[in-house]
Amino acid sequence: MYSIPELQQILDKAVTSYQYPNQPQELYEPVSYLLGLGGKRLRPALLLMAVDAFGGNVLQATKPALAIEFFHNFTLMHDDIMDKAPLRRGKPTVHAKWNDAVAILSGDIMLIDAYKLISQVEASILPQVLSLFNTTAQEVCEGQQFDMNFEKEASVSIANYLNMIRLKTAVLLGGALKTGALIAHASTSNQNLIYNFGVNLGIAFQLQDDILDVYGDPEKFGKQIGGDIISNKKTFLLIKALELAKGSDQNLLISLLENKSIKAESKVEQVTNLYDKLSIKNIAEEAMLDFANRAIESLNAIAIPEDKKSVLKDFATQLIQREH
Amino acid sequence: MYSIPELQQILDKAVTSYQYPNQPQELYEPVSYLLGLGGKRLRPALLLMAVDAFGGNVLQATKPALAIEFFHNFTLMHDDIMDKAPLRRGKPTVHAKWNDAVAILSGDIMLIDAYKLISQVEASILPQVLSLFNTTAQEVCEGQQFDMNFEKEASVSIANYLNMIRLKTAVLLGGALKTGALIAHASTSNQNLIYNFGVNLGIAFQLQDDILDVYGDPEKFGKQIGGDIISNKKTFLLIKALELAKGSDQNLLISLLENKSIKAESKVEQVTNLYDKLSIKNIAEEAMLDFANRAIESLNAIAIPEDKKSVLKDFATQLIQREH
Repeated sequence: MYSIPELQQILDKAVTSYQYPNQPQELYEPVSYLLGLGGKRLRPALLLMAVDAFGGNVLQATKPALAIEFFHNFTLMHDDIMDKAPLRRGKPTVHAKWNDAVAILSGDIMLIDAYKLISQVEASILPQVLSLFNTTAQEVCEGQQFDMNFEKEASVSIANYLNMIRLKTAVLLGGALKTGALIAHASTSNQNLIYNFGVNLGIAFQLQDDILDVYGDPEKFGKQIGGDIISNKKTFLLIKALELAKGSDQNLLISLLENKSIKAESKVEQVTNLYDKLSIKNIAEEAMLDFANRAIESLNAIAIPEDKKSVLKDFATQLIQREH
Repeated sequence: MYSIPELQQILDKAVTSYQYPNQPQELYEPVSYLLGLGGKRLRPALLLMAVDAFGGNVLQATKPALAIEFFHNFTLMHDDIMDKAPLRRGKPTVHAKWNDAVAILSGDIMLIDAYKLISQVEASILPQVLSLFNTTAQEVCEGQQFDMNFEKEASVSIANYLNMIRLKTAVLLGGALKTGALIAHASTSNQNLIYNFGVNLGIAFQLQDDILDVYGDPEKFGKQIGGDIISNKKTFLLIKALELAKGSDQNLLISLLENKSIKAESKVEQVTNLYDKLSIKNIAEEAMLDFANRAIESLNAIAIPEDKKSVLKDFATQLIQREH
């Protein structure tokens, strides 16, 4: 079995040695720039982990794994334009470094490159792999649209929020894993179980993100604590607090959200105090663990020897216990 | 054999009856809006013409034909953002009617929809169809990038211009026809011949566009005559004039291009006079006819009965003799 760092190394090498056409360089330079900013290559690593777990050839699966990485970076490049984000992994985003037109067209070519890469699986599984890739890609775009809609909506339900993060974040983890299962000719039942493992893990991952944004250790988190509170982002925590707060708590929460002149530090402190009063951290952790447990249940049900699942199980544990 | 109007009717019906998901409507409404603006459906009609010419089942090929139409409209939606175009087919562009974020994400979903549609060809030809689709999509993006680059470049050669319009416009015509040939199980030789027919026809088509923009009949053209001249667009005509003009003609042409206070009407008149003096119209028509003849030669070489080629031949003739 390959360890996660070994898989990340294989993927970093595959990204670095990917051959772009020479011309037009204005199109391909931003692609190479964004992919070169690094990142943990978690999504393509999941594909390779699944290939490995089901006894496939990991080194022959780097192209479909790269397809997942290209797709993920395509969504980052376009989402950053839509979100007007200045930074990505601490460096200027593509639209900030070049301009919107460059980021649109280079994003388009990354999506097409992703399709070129995924198309290189063997012909016998191409229809299934492609159909999964299409569905996943569509769902990720739908998730992004729901996320943008939520910014403008007065109230969002927990169910709609969970559906949004399932689409925007979780299905790509499930899709990467199931693609690996398809490549390794896993049974249909095992394909579906590993998909469910990935989707539930992805939802747990995002909920953990929401929690860390408020309750993370500032030394380890790497981002400003309370960023979501400052920007009124409708996370699980805020949606739950809006649902539970009554009377004076409700009034205070709404006034904090509407107050545009309040200092960031004071807003974070007061909202966090309200969260504490309403036990929001516990509720969010319970929800997170619920999805994590569902993921583990699916993993347990996969009909392969336990030692083949060890890397996936370690990965899941790390993702949920992480502090950044 | 189906006539072109019959094919257009089949395609209009297929576009109208295409089922979008209900949610999120912000994502799918702009797709339906843009596709609903009409257009001649020429590119998907070419796919169906090729299916028909090679004895395939036209009515079973509407999904891959729609894939071509979705892909083409994806490029329109994103190009219109990059070009800051306010109108498309006389109506507000998607980014103008909604905003850039909507046009980016709805364009993305159209490209993914195109892949969903093209993926539905029979499995035996899927690898070839998909590979052609990927290559064509990549080339169209490269063409758009070259086109944007040319705006900023002081001088563009005729060879580079022809390569740009081949990529941006012509390969999609060739790709649509070759996809139809693949669906109808045409021979490799016939596939390549119809591809070359389409590419050369596409270049002729774009050159005819360049000519009509200056020399079209204002009553029939439907757009403002001289629009390319007003915007200093590097068309075949302008590039050729810059190449041929010497002495005082050269100075006049450059001063007209650099003069920002000149009235549009006067600029169009003076540049057109220079074009006339340099016989630019004849040179452009010769180039256009050269590509049209190459297209017809490829069509003639296709090993099927002549009567099967009649619709394609009529189509080519109409495209070249058109006045709008």
